[in-house]
Amino acid sequence: MVVNHEHNLPLDDRGRLTYRLDLEYDGTNFSGWQYQPGERTVQGVLENAVVRLFPDSTRISAAGRTDAGVHATGQVAHFRSTGLREPGTVHKALNALLPADLCVIGVRMEDPAFHARFSAKWRGYSYKIARKPLAIGRAFCWQYCHRLNVAEMQSAARMILGDHCFLSFAHESEKERHYLSSVYHSEWQENDQYLIYCIEANRFLHGMVRFLVGTFVSIGRGKFGAEQIQTILRAQDVRLAGAKVPAQGLTLTVVGYENWSPSHPSK
Amino acid sequence: MVVNHEHNLPLDDRGRLTYRLDLEYDGTNFSGWQYQPGERTVQGVLENAVVRLFPDSTRISAAGRTDAGVHATGQVAHFRSTGLREPGTVHKALNALLPADLCVIGVRMEDPAFHARFSAKWRGYSYKIARKPLAIGRAFCWQYCHRLNVAEMQSAARMILGDHCFLSFAHESEKERHYLSSVYHSEWQENDQYLIYCIEANRFLHGMVRFLVGTFVSIGRGKFGAEQIQTILRAQDVRLAGAKVPAQGLTLTVVGYENWSPSHPSK
Repeated sequence: MVVNHEHNLPLDDRGRLTYRLDLEYDGTNFSGWQYQPGERTVQGVLENAVVRLFPDSTRISAAGRTDAGVHATGQVAHFRSTGLREPGTVHKALNALLPADLCVIGVRMEDPAFHARFSAKWRGYSYKIARKPLAIGRAFCWQYCHRLNVAEMQSAARMILGDHCFLSFAHESEKERHYLSSVYHSEWQENDQYLIYCIEANRFLHGMVRFLVGTFVSIGRGKFGAEQIQTILRAQDVRLAGAKVPAQGLTLTVVGYENWSPSHPSK
Repeated sequence: MVVNHEHNLPLDDRGRLTYRLDLEYDGTNFSGWQYQPGERTVQGVLENAVVRLFPDSTRISAAGRTDAGVHATGQVAHFRSTGLREPGTVHKALNALLPADLCVIGVRMEDPAFHARFSAKWRGYSYKIARKPLAIGRAFCWQYCHRLNVAEMQSAARMILGDHCFLSFAHESEKERHYLSSVYHSEWQENDQYLIYCIEANRFLHGMVRFLVGTFVSIGRGKFGAEQIQTILRAQDVRLAGAKVPAQGLTLTVVGYENWSPSHPSK
């Protein structure tokens, strides 16, 4: 590791600094995180802003490659550049360049070993179901007003805690070597207006939270019992899962770079 | 008062029933409550839906005639019609007809003496200031990231409690006979992300909450001290108030039809 001695900052082997960005976005008008030519993506819009401040910046990597329509309050991304700018200045400058539906909520320098995606130990997502018609906040939830047995949904949520193969709750992809995930937290919270599912795990397969929530909702509707979750997990067949729920209820809320603990700071 | 004997429902002297509607709306894409030809207003959109169910319905009156861009979570409106439909059915049918940014959250029959505006004893508004840049919920707050002395703003908020002439915090109008209002509650709440001003009063003058918040913000910035609020009230001159803050931070949260009490149900 090289060090910029004047400022005592760690550089990678090409003399570049590592900038971590914490991000919030309203996914409604983005075609997801990942760059796609001709599409408005979070990565594309963010890179266009970053390159104005850091002309030699690398591609920006994120901890969670959220799908089209999915929101984030705690996304983490990084880039590397030889450019040296004070994090507070970068924070303000980027927010001045970014559109209203994407904003930087924190900037800091990291060690060159840091990688937003590969250094992450766990992520947290929430899925919000509105129980009554609503106008305010409607872009950040799924409106579903049928009666649900929340106690059964809660039992089912607890059954996925621990290490499981989630092939029954994922889109298959040639890129995945396996579908194992360790689920640390899985719980429904209820208030007057919303039912909110919170899940924390070391790894999320593509579509996992939305397939899980769809299955919990089928259980809540009485289509099958909570214990059926175990049968579905064992079957390793996505056709047994409930229908995937809409993207707009899903939010990436937190990314953890330390080992998960029940009392992590976001709680 | 006439009574529909078959259903034991109170009718007005023209044989009409009175329907109360509780409403929530996202004011972003409305030119305010009040009907204006060629403009998309809450009253106009709502009347278009109601007339499909009740062809002889009267003009719809609301408790608070919110300005363009102002939101509501607790607006109350009423109309009268000879049509007899079960409130639960009206509730569902209207929500099926209304656009996503306007929804009915309650329907009930009222006595013919009920008038959403004239029977209201008090209203409550909240004004939300985001203290950090944000993407989610940005349509429902004003982003203002400068440092503010919240203790001074709180003192100033308390000074408007009671009966005062609010001519210094209102747009003058020939329709107003006087500018007196009785303020029952006036308080700033603070959390990690927002500063929220809550006010409850028997009557709100046009622009009153936004002029008040603008003045509290000037106090929070140190432009003048909290006690200056009393001087401004006495001057009865709107030029002394702070600049009116943007509409998008303002929400009509509650309308009370009983005398105000500190423990009213919305608390």
